[in-house]
Amino acid sequence: MVISKSGGTAETSSQLLWIIEKLRQRGIDPDASIVAITDPENGTLRSIAQQRGWRTLPVPPEVGGRFSVLTAVGLLPAALTGIDIHALVAGARSALSDLSSATADHALVRWISSWEEHHELRTMVVHFAYRDRLVTLGDWFAQLWAESLGKKHDLSGQEVYRGSTPLVARGVTDQHSLVQLFVEGPDDKQFLFLDAHLNESDLEISKETAQLHPDLEYLGNKSLGELRRAELEGTIAALQSAGRPVSRVLLDTIDESHIGAWMMLMEIATVLAAEILNVDPFDQPGVEGGKAVAFARMGKPGWSEKGRRIEAGAQELKPSPPIPVSKNND
Amino acid sequence: MVISKSGGTAETSSQLLWIIEKLRQRGIDPDASIVAITDPENGTLRSIAQQRGWRTLPVPPEVGGRFSVLTAVGLLPAALTGIDIHALVAGARSALSDLSSATADHALVRWISSWEEHHELRTMVVHFAYRDRLVTLGDWFAQLWAESLGKKHDLSGQEVYRGSTPLVARGVTDQHSLVQLFVEGPDDKQFLFLDAHLNESDLEISKETAQLHPDLEYLGNKSLGELRRAELEGTIAALQSAGRPVSRVLLDTIDESHIGAWMMLMEIATVLAAEILNVDPFDQPGVEGGKAVAFARMGKPGWSEKGRRIEAGAQELKPSPPIPVSKNND
Repeated sequence: MVISKSGGTAETSSQLLWIIEKLRQRGIDPDASIVAITDPENGTLRSIAQQRGWRTLPVPPEVGGRFSVLTAVGLLPAALTGIDIHALVAGARSALSDLSSATADHALVRWISSWEEHHELRTMVVHFAYRDRLVTLGDWFAQLWAESLGKKHDLSGQEVYRGSTPLVARGVTDQHSLVQLFVEGPDDKQFLFLDAHLNESDLEISKETAQLHPDLEYLGNKSLGELRRAELEGTIAALQSAGRPVSRVLLDTIDESHIGAWMMLMEIATVLAAEILNVDPFDQPGVEGGKAVAFARMGKPGWSEKGRRIEAGAQELKPSPPIPVSKNND
Repeated sequence: MVISKSGGTAETSSQLLWIIEKLRQRGIDPDASIVAITDPENGTLRSIAQQRGWRTLPVPPEVGGRFSVLTAVGLLPAALTGIDIHALVAGARSALSDLSSATADHALVRWISSWEEHHELRTMVVHFAYRDRLVTLGDWFAQLWAESLGKKHDLSGQEVYRGSTPLVARGVTDQHSLVQLFVEGPDDKQFLFLDAHLNESDLEISKETAQLHPDLEYLGNKSLGELRRAELEGTIAALQSAGRPVSRVLLDTIDESHIGAWMMLMEIATVLAAEILNVDPFDQPGVEGGKAVAFARMGKPGWSEKGRRIEAGAQELKPSPPIPVSKNND
């Protein structure tokens, strides 16, 4: 399965080529084995797929990479891992249609209002999930939020260098890593806590076992779920006591329809945040420079001059030879 | 293996109790199976270990959790996974002794000078590792840096809310996630790129396979390692062109002695940064509030009043009822 809207991304292309080589070496026909998810008409990958007769699924041309999780781009891999993608899409659709009757109490309205109120002073958003199964949503959110909002120019073409930086944290682990900074450091962050009602078996500690030591007796007849919840409440209270802005989201349950709903709400929240910052959420001009340099170094035709110019300019501006770390460090 | 300096941390204690219960249920003697790494004299865990006759290793009393990776805390787990801990410690020792003859060209001096020059405007440090085997060093760095520097009070007791926020990125993946923000967003970050000379077999693409499509021919006779390197240079050039401060570290090779050396240098860098910010790198008073609330909620004797007071104060200051996400979202 190869996924690329254009087929021009060097990492995807090179991995595709390498895998084709390995398949051939093992006597497997690549053309019968590969599925391409790409633009329905244009681009290198579509052209290859047509020539070689690969099976394909489309990436809707009007949907950019970071907004594509609910298209074939996300849905085929999800289906292959056993996720109910019909429920995922139904949850997203229902969240979208419910918006027409949204009031000030709606999850999306409350979160984006809180973000807007604080975003000028609090330029970071900490995505703090307190359930392991919600943590990787943070990585998805990070791309969506960072790439959509981080823009040099606003919609009128002014240089503004806008943006909001996502930071992904995991409860309770990062209480022992980042919370000291969050509570006592600069007041430059706002917090989005993600939790869900428990819908899985909890682990209980018996009264007898907790008698191991008087200091631990309080844990008798308690569960790890209760402890996780107490830690979440403790972290939120500590942040609020320090005057740090906290929003908290509580999913009714962790299943496809709720995750689909939440993803849709976050995609819309990102577009609303772009509206507030007056930037285009759908472009990413800032990745072109690095791409040009990489293409030039790899010898891709047509890129050498542009890539070398950027690299030479950068070196002139701010040379940074690598700092060596060798066995003898000095 | 249970690791806790005091034995008072609720997550560690509750997991320990739960595992003791499971061992007993399966007819395994916990006292013969558990190894405790804890304070050599004081604390709940030391007291349990003594009573039950557990095997133990010490956490040096003067070394706090985030600086303990090169003590038994990190070394026993590392040894069990097959890491050569003697080389790790030797690398750290050698990096430390080399410091006495360090010049301005030394890795540590160059990185901390660059950080100091930019830290007031660039309050975030992006740990950008371009080798998969270096990425999790970022999580270790994040705790070390965040918890050591994020402090409400400086050494003279003034309220200063100092700190520097670590952000962990992975190359090349995060080029497609965060680099747009890094290049075009607010100029509030500085960058630490980590790379190493290749000391493992590289994957090559043959000239024939690259003839799949004219657009991909440039990848023939190239390797994935070359591509990774080109992408790294491209990202650095793009950031430098945008005037963003970049430091780059190049390990001679990825092995225990170089990782040990680098960890030692980063621990010292963190202490130097604390010196620059005039804060105590070794305390973490900001985690006490959350702990008190969690203990109070779990019914730990002696904590109920303090915990309830913090939580009530927080609620009064800034109530934040959870935002529900249910099937019907409005």
